[in-house]
Parts: sequence; C-alpha cells; structure tokens
Amino acid sequence: MKTPHGMIETPAFVPVATKGTLKTIPPKDLKEIGVRAAFVNTFHLTVHPGVDVIKALGGIHKYASLDISLMSDSAGFQVFSLAGKKPERAVRNREEDEIPVKKITEEGVWFRSPRDGKEMIFTPEVSIRNQEKIGADIIMAFDECIYYGANREYTKEATERTHRWLLRCIKTKRPNGQYLYGIIQGGMFKDLRIESAKFIARQEVDGVAIGGVSVGESKKELREQVRWVAPYLAENKPVHLLGVGRVEDILDAVPYGIDTFDCVEPTRLARKGVVFQKAGRNFTRIDVMKSRYRRYKNPIQRDCKCYTCQNFSLSFLHHVFKERELLGYYLATYHNLFFFADLFGDIRKRIEKG
Amino acid sequence: MKTPHGMIETPAFVPVATKGTLKTIPPKDLKEIGVRAAFVNTFHLTVHPGVDVIKALGGIHKYASLDISLMSDSAGFQVFSLAGKKPERAVRNREEDEIPVKKITEEGVWFRSPRDGKEMIFTPEVSIRNQEKIGADIIMAFDECIYYGANREYTKEATERTHRWLLRCIKTKRPNGQYLYGIIQGGMFKDLRIESAKFIARQEVDGVAIGGVSVGESKKELREQVRWVAPYLAENKPVHLLGVGRVEDILDAVPYGIDTFDCVEPTRLARKGVVFQKAGRNFTRIDVMKSRYRRYKNPIQRDCKCYTCQNFSLSFLHHVFKERELLGYYLATYHNLFFFADLFGDIRKRIEKG
Repeated sequence: MKTPHGMIETPAFVPVATKGTLKTIPPKDLKEIGVRAAFVNTFHLTVHPGVDVIKALGGIHKYASLDISLMSDSAGFQVFSLAGKKPERAVRNREEDEIPVKKITEEGVWFRSPRDGKEMIFTPEVSIRNQEKIGADIIMAFDECIYYGANREYTKEATERTHRWLLRCIKTKRPNGQYLYGIIQGGMFKDLRIESAKFIARQEVDGVAIGGVSVGESKKELREQVRWVAPYLAENKPVHLLGVGRVEDILDAVPYGIDTFDCVEPTRLARKGVVFQKAGRNFTRIDVMKSRYRRYKNPIQRDCKCYTCQNFSLSFLHHVFKERELLGYYLATYHNLFFFADLFGDIRKRIEKG
Repeated sequence: MKTPHGMIETPAFVPVATKGTLKTIPPKDLKEIGVRAAFVNTFHLTVHPGVDVIKALGGIHKYASLDISLMSDSAGFQVFSLAGKKPERAVRNREEDEIPVKKITEEGVWFRSPRDGKEMIFTPEVSIRNQEKIGADIIMAFDECIYYGANREYTKEATERTHRWLLRCIKTKRPNGQYLYGIIQGGMFKDLRIESAKFIARQEVDGVAIGGVSVGESKKELREQVRWVAPYLAENKPVHLLGVGRVEDILDAVPYGIDTFDCVEPTRLARKGVVFQKAGRNFTRIDVMKSRYRRYKNPIQRDCKCYTCQNFSLSFLHHVFKERELLGYYLATYHNLFFFADLFGDIRKRIEKG
C-alpha cells in the first residue's frame, strides 16, 4: 500500500497511537523498530486537544511529529463503547434502556462526553470533517458498533443505517488525498455480514474495514466473521481488520486476505510487563515481574535484534517493573512492537514463498 | 576528570539515576543529550534488586546498560532522610526521640526499611562493600547526614563520627580502580565545616564531596556552607556538591571551585511538566500545562537543538501532559537534561574565556 507518507508492505501491523503517541516510544525510534503506520483515535483527539488545534498546527503528522502513514478511526467504536465509560456498562445500560448513548437517530448519535459529561453529537458529516482536520492518510466511515447480544432485528436496522451513513460519508468527503474505507457490519449474523460486505464492495471507497461488535465476542465468533465475508472482499482494495491483535487471530486471518490489523495488544501488554517471546514458529508471552527472572541473565529473546534484547537482561526488566521505573514501559513496548514488526516480516516472507 | 568510563569535562552536571535509570530516557539517547555521568543510589539499589544481583549480572554499567561514568552515594542521605519515609517526619521524630533511625552508634546505623519494615544496618564497611558490588566509577564515604536544626554539640559529635567512619571506609576499600570521595560535614556551623574540610583534605581520598543537612536548609545557608570550605579544598582533587541542582545555586557555586553537581531537579520537574527556557544568560521555568500553551506553535525554546524542541510545539507538550501520555515525560526530561548539559557547556566556555 502506498500513502502520502510512504509504502506499507502488507500484511502489516498498525499499532495504536490513540492520542497521537505510541505511549513511551518517541517517533524517532519508529523506523528502527519497523513501525511504518499507526492508528490514531478521532474520538479522543476530538475531546483533546480538539481537531481545530490539530488542523491549526499543521495536521496530526506534523503535530505529533509522526512521519509514517496514519489511519484514523471514525469515532464509532468509542461513541458506542466508551460513552458509558466502561464498555460493559454501555452494553448493559443499552439493554436496560438507560442509555449513556442518549439517542441514535438517522442523523447520528447524541451522547455524553466521558470527560466532562457534556452532550456531544457525532454524525457521518462530523466524523468525516473531524478526520479531515486531523489529516490521517486513511480515514474510516462512521459506523454503528453494534452491541454484543443484539437481536437480528436490531442488527439489521443498525447495519442498514451504517450503510446509509457510508453514503453520506462519501458525499461529505472532499477530494483531498485521504483514502476512505467503508466498514462492514452485520453483528453476529452471517447473512447480514455477507449483505454488508456486498454493499461495501459496490461503493466508491478506497478500502474496506471489517468492524466488530462493541465488546464481548469470542475468538470463534471473531474468526467466523472474517470467514463469512472473505469471498466478498474486493480483490483490488486493501482490507483492514479493526481491533484484532492477538497473534493467533492474526495468523488465522491473514489467509483470508486481511492486509492490515490494528490493536492495543502489544503496547498495552508491554505496560503490564508482559512481553512476547518467539521460538521458531511458536511464540509465548512472559511476565517479567515473576520472581524467577530476578537473576535471569538472558534477554527476553536471545536472537532478537531489538534494542531491549541487545542491551538488557530479563533481570533488569524485572527490576525496573518491580520498582515501577518508567524506563520499563519503554523497553517492553520497544520489544513488543519490534516483535510484531518482525512477525509480519515473517508472514510476508512465507506468503512470498507460497 | 577521567574515569574508566570516559572523560568528563568539568564543571559538569550529573543527573540522578536513582535505581539505575534516568526514568524515561533510554541509555542510547544519553550521548546525543550530552549526559556523560550519572549518580546512582546505593540505598535504593541495595533494597532492590540487591547488590549481589547487580554484581552477578556484571556490575551497574552492564546491568543498566549505562556506558557513561557513574557515581554512587554512600546511602547516608537515605538512611537519615528516608528511614521515616518523609524527610520531615524523620527530622521531627528524631527531636521527639521516636527515631525511625533506631540507633546510631560508633558501629553504624540501625533503621527500619521503608519497603518492608525489616531492620537493616548500614556501617562504613557495609556501604563500601555494597558500592564495590554496584561498581560505579566514583564512590562516596559513609557519612551522617545531620538533621536540620541540630545543636552545636550534636553536630560536632556527628561530624567527628563521620570522620572516623571515613578512616574505616579508606581501610575497607579494595584497590579496584574505583575512586573514593570523602564527605565534608559540619552541619550549619562554620568552624565545624572548616575543621571537617581540613580533615578531609589530609586523607588519602581521590576527591571531596560537600554534604548537606538532611533537609530544610535555606538557599542562603547552602551557599554559605560552600563559601566557608572553599579555601580549604585541595587544588588537585575534584569537588562534588551533593544534591544541588537549582540553576541559580549552581551558578553561585562554580566560582568556588565546585566541579560536579548532582540533583533530581531537571528530571523531577520534567515529570511535572516544568521545563527550562533560556533567554541569553537568563533562564526561566515554564509549566506546559498552562492553558495559554494549548495552541502555542513554537517549541519550548526556539534555538534549542534538542530532539523535543526540533520536533514538537508547546501545544503538543501541553496536550500530552494534559492527557497524561507517557511520551510527555520523555520529551520534557529530554529537553531539561539537554538544557543542563548546554548550560554547563556555556559555563565551561565562560571559564575558558576567563
């Protein structure tokens, strides 16, 4: 894939830079780690610092000094899952009809900001305008992230609304060089997923994203959703799988034509002291805080070429995590991002070899 | 100054890497920032990961991947100021005779670990053995950090004990290439300070450190202590001023022959979002969280050559600190350490020019 900010070899992992940062990693380290793209969050950037600030300061690439390809989401996921602060509550509240999402209409979504309780509205037009101001290379259409457990009737209604919203997104978007992806919905229903995939394939979009439900689906359900729509994905357009980052799920999805994946998994686990270790084609996760690593002289992975493994023992990582030293978050995040970049390099090699 | 880990041009600032890290800054960045030496903490490293772990893993340089000159303190300051967790409480408790420092004898200091409440003992011999295991280039003799407000009688007794402890440190230390500094004490009394300086000057030490009181002295009192002892410092030995890092105090002390300074000031302030700004020979501190910086396009300091100023606006720093993004701590720490390295470069140039 080519964007105004460089080439992305696919399949590729796109780590999440929610508020414009990869947490502990300064942008100058991204090239050596092998990160060529990141995923920023329209909802969070709208809340702070505000999309007008970002636009006034030259767009997100310049503002956050990120000279790599960037994707932004539509805010759909956050509007539906964060509005009640905890996704679980949002789901439960919806069922009890005490919705933190105040109102979903044809127009858009009214909800209360989790920051200050103020009423906000997101519509397809607001989402696209905000994403234009943020200025990522790839932007997403506004979709309803359907709650887990929704019945067929509600799911059909929401999916069709998402389709109508896509048409408004296409109409709103200016010809400014950004690429627009349509999002496949359909919740947990095979026929609705296929119908949605076919609908998106017919639209004038630059790529396709597969959207999940707001929270709660099982590994099996997630994998089924990919299998259902795979035959209906356009051959000549890139496909993004939203929010999927478990290694086993990635390896499962690649053969079905998924090009890019975003997930907080490697960065979030790193901040808990959980790092990835490769052994041939298998891998494992280890918790550096376990007391067995207190005197452990080897790095996380002996043949890993990353800065962390080349310079630090597991004993040192154990020490800095136990003592809550900030450097620990950097070292673990560096390694995990390197691990994912390396994993996708392996995947691409294996594809090339057939 | 030359150490086994390189040259240090003096006067130099020695930032504090308490537990073996400069908090958010990976060691690979230190050369470009201009940090040539750091100060590690014997007390904290003894508590975790333990000096035997550090020795088994090859010493602190290898363990923490710090390829720069390192100094370690004697644990004296922490034993006297941290034993009661809060320095203020330690002082008050001492006066009330409810001492968290359980016992000070000729032998050493018994106290309760702030980590687990276990009784620990530090003696001159323990301090030197632990510092040998840590393996810094420059180590400090074990001294009593006298509490603020101590009377003349107590101060005289404690200072003379510190002198006897120095002789035990010299006797204990192996000829292993580490440099040993003696510490001038004498609390708030001019004659005791001068007597202490003269005593240290007569001993077989590689350098001299000026120790403070545990906490509470004023700027004026601190400066007086330097003035009192300045005439009695050996011309041919380096002099370190312990725990001093306010720019105005540094500029005041340099003409009296101080070669090196350590302080948490630039790194600790950075983590609060306070950064240094230079304007000619003057400087100021600014709080990036102030709302006036929300849309501020310029960096902290326009002519600063550091990574942060070359790539990020104050608006972005404001954003990441408001949102508590970890990258903020990195960017502010990077700038403040660069500012101090730059400040000392200026000081050296001005000395060269007479």
